[in-house]
Amino acid sequence: MIPEHDPQRLQLNDAGKLRHFLTIEDLPCEILTEILDTAESFVSMGEQSVKKVPLLRGKTVMNLFFENSTRTRATFELAAKRLSADVLNLDIKTSSTAKGETLMDTLQNLEAMHADAFVVRHSESGAAHFIASQITPDVAIINAGDGRHAHPTQAMLDMFTIRRHKGAFEGLKVAIVGDILHSRVARSQIQALNTLGAAAVRVVAPKTLLPRDIEALGVEVYTRMEEGLKDVDVVIMLRLQRERMHGALLPSEGEYYRLYGLTQEKLTYARPDVIVMHPGPINRGVEIESAVADGPRSVILQQVSYGIATRMAVLSMATGGQAQQRELSQSMQQENNQ
Amino acid sequence: MIPEHDPQRLQLNDAGKLRHFLTIEDLPCEILTEILDTAESFVSMGEQSVKKVPLLRGKTVMNLFFENSTRTRATFELAAKRLSADVLNLDIKTSSTAKGETLMDTLQNLEAMHADAFVVRHSESGAAHFIASQITPDVAIINAGDGRHAHPTQAMLDMFTIRRHKGAFEGLKVAIVGDILHSRVARSQIQALNTLGAAAVRVVAPKTLLPRDIEALGVEVYTRMEEGLKDVDVVIMLRLQRERMHGALLPSEGEYYRLYGLTQEKLTYARPDVIVMHPGPINRGVEIESAVADGPRSVILQQVSYGIATRMAVLSMATGGQAQQRELSQSMQQENNQ
Amino acid sequence: MIPEHDPQRLQLNDAGKLRHFLTIEDLPCEILTEILDTAESFVSMGEQSVKKVPLLRGKTVMNLFFENSTRTRATFELAAKRLSADVLNLDIKTSSTAKGETLMDTLQNLEAMHADAFVVRHSESGAAHFIASQITPDVAIINAGDGRHAHPTQAMLDMFTIRRHKGAFEGLKVAIVGDILHSRVARSQIQALNTLGAAAVRVVAPKTLLPRDIEALGVEVYTRMEEGLKDVDVVIMLRLQRERMHGALLPSEGEYYRLYGLTQEKLTYARPDVIVMHPGPINRGVEIESAVADGPRSVILQQVSYGIATRMAVLSMATGGQAQQRELSQSMQQENNQ
Repeated sequence: MIPEHDPQRLQLNDAGKLRHFLTIEDLPCEILTEILDTAESFVSMGEQSVKKVPLLRGKTVMNLFFENSTRTRATFELAAKRLSADVLNLDIKTSSTAKGETLMDTLQNLEAMHADAFVVRHSESGAAHFIASQITPDVAIINAGDGRHAHPTQAMLDMFTIRRHKGAFEGLKVAIVGDILHSRVARSQIQALNTLGAAAVRVVAPKTLLPRDIEALGVEVYTRMEEGLKDVDVVIMLRLQRERMHGALLPSEGEYYRLYGLTQEKLTYARPDVIVMHPGPINRGVEIESAVADGPRSVILQQVSYGIATRMAVLSMATGGQAQQRELSQSMQQENNQ
Repeated sequence: MIPEHDPQRLQLNDAGKLRHFLTIEDLPCEILTEILDTAESFVSMGEQSVKKVPLLRGKTVMNLFFENSTRTRATFELAAKRLSADVLNLDIKTSSTAKGETLMDTLQNLEAMHADAFVVRHSESGAAHFIASQITPDVAIINAGDGRHAHPTQAMLDMFTIRRHKGAFEGLKVAIVGDILHSRVARSQIQALNTLGAAAVRVVAPKTLLPRDIEALGVEVYTRMEEGLKDVDVVIMLRLQRERMHGALLPSEGEYYRLYGLTQEKLTYARPDVIVMHPGPINRGVEIESAVADGPRSVILQQVSYGIATRMAVLSMATGGQAQQRELSQSMQQENNQ
Repeated sequence: MIPEHDPQRLQLNDAGKLRHFLTIEDLPCEILTEILDTAESFVSMGEQSVKKVPLLRGKTVMNLFFENSTRTRATFELAAKRLSADVLNLDIKTSSTAKGETLMDTLQNLEAMHADAFVVRHSESGAAHFIASQITPDVAIINAGDGRHAHPTQAMLDMFTIRRHKGAFEGLKVAIVGDILHSRVARSQIQALNTLGAAAVRVVAPKTLLPRDIEALGVEVYTRMEEGLKDVDVVIMLRLQRERMHGALLPSEGEYYRLYGLTQEKLTYARPDVIVMHPGPINRGVEIESAVADGPRSVILQQVSYGIATRMAVLSMATGGQAQQRELSQSMQQENNQ
């Protein structure tokens, strides 16, 4: 039941098309660009009076949220419904696992109901990857955030936002500011920016909120905002994940805001046409000043809109890639039989 | 982002059509009649084998229930689905607001997902009005009950029920009986009956369950059932909101039932063709006798059926009014640019 | 409102077609076969790229789960959505019943919203039957498990699985193994196998897990696996319902597994082409060995797939039977009026 495969190729089918979306890592620039181009075809739909396409009609998308996230679940649910899929929301914690069933049995049961895609949110790093490689490889697995590891659809909607406002990635300087250490979003953004060819990816944070091996990811490291923001085209603020902060990594919220909070004053270090992004939900007065969040350089609410289109793109591409893989496997089997 | 407007006109667009439905107050008779007429076109649908129309196909309706109400949520969910809308149920209490996000940010995020309508239930009076005027004026806001203030779709389904059974409002005498003090339903009913031209609106309650300024609403006040029910065409019983009763406003449930419970005997004071209504859920033996609730004069279950049709009418009219407003604003802008 | 009827005929309309699905008991072989044949037409759909038919378009199916069951709810929700019905999930416990409303009022309110089918799961035996006979006879009631009484859609998907793999019931020997005493599934399976003409239905269990009057159901009773499994064509393992075991009915889980757990070794008593079934969720190492559950004779995951098709069959047949009954009643009334 578990196919052998090159781990690098887990996300792509035999024709090189997306079949799972687990991490930005290892994905070629062409696939990321295809996601952005596909999202482009959906983004205008949001403004139309009929926002629906029949691409996934008759397909079943299951939202498996092992970790609670109303907002991310809502965007995936809307994306799937606007593709005309049937959507099932399952809170796995309260499900049969409580009856002593293993996670493998639960997921294989859901697969047997002819699920086409699982949208997986999990507090453990690697959960989505494990499901795709070991449990249900024939269901398109979409990683909606796993532990500190990755949040690839968030990163792609951020890339979409940047491309929409800046045209291309070539020559762009992007600063990611804040709690890099605990941020799965930051890891995915760095990988995407490097793959798509940004000129420079900077991280700006106090040393206590930086992973040890951060330079290995291909970034420039800054600990002072004045230098980190200098002449950048894009500032991505991260949420100060107060609920994830264990121990005394920070002096105080006030001190953090004074040093790393994005204020109108600090924003003047960046280019005049800089755009300000944030994955949300924002902490006003903690990592960002309201005047910046609501100001003319902010594209934070556009990110939300683009998030639906980007998730529509990933859902339709990955279910399509799985369908193509089934055909490829069948024709290969027929050739072998002849 | 927040348009300036005459508060009286908040619910109507520049062409005088409904764009929000927050309160019966201030709405002209023509709009209320348009709601009833539109509901009429939907009410027969419930009896057809296919109960669905494509009016809101591709539109997104979000149920934002800050206060729990399975029944009201179910009727709005069904109404939206029978209009072919995509529906998202959001329990806002457990959502990102727990992560420190402001209500404004949460709602503007949902708007950015291209929501067409928010159905809002909230324990604070004025919540729906605040959202429509200050937060997301371009989303159609439907008030599904706010504090003690208003429950306008309930009032309109009651008006629909009365018109269906009595033909017109002219000459009608209507008695509203029970806990007027705590009832948002009663306030909305009184306003609707007066706007639609009922001959007399009576309230019947012990003094402890009457607001001080009740006469200002344009009602006749009675404290004895024998007098209050005399010759009325319609009796609307209110639920004894035991969960909202703080302090000793009532001697006892038994005493309340003896004085104000609607029994077959007390019903004889009314006209022989009286209809008995109740917004539900009913407390049998507390404010109404089972023989009356289940008897030939009761239209309580019809009210539920009409509730779907009335909510379909409000949803389709308000989303239509918002779409029209967008067109009006665009053409005004184009004229200004020429 | 409550029609009088022969209790034997409660599940069938005046033309002999299914209108409720409450129990296998009393249903003729033709109806069971019609369910299997209808499911057959749906089962291939799961493998198609578009898994949807418009049979219940515009119909409303309400899932009323008084007892929690994520898995069963999911299969009914998917079945209804693949039939194009609108689906409403209602957690009745947290609903208006908390406000003092009676169950009768809650259900009649839901009926008044023009529900076409209620899928009812309840911890009390007879709940679905009571609703169909006493509360809302015109809504198609589908029993999704009531107390220890019945779980007829589970039994029918099991019958479907057997017929798919064995062709017919004639001549088949079937063993049901485990906690017969607490199992509503077992009762329904025994009735279905006898009605459909299986050659022998065996139950295999320790005496403490057998009902006293078990022989009256038309089964052969075995307390030793070697004898009970000898030459059978089908083994149905039951879940050891640990959460329902009150008191000391069993020595220990280890002892139970040694005596009644289905291992590869014990399976050799059965016919070589035996199929192994289990209603799920399975307890690995408690009532079944992993090597058997995942082995070549296991059809456990196919059961899940067939479960969707079987529930689609029951939902479409019962709502069709109710629609037909309405027509029959109307034409009968017209004849009486002439």
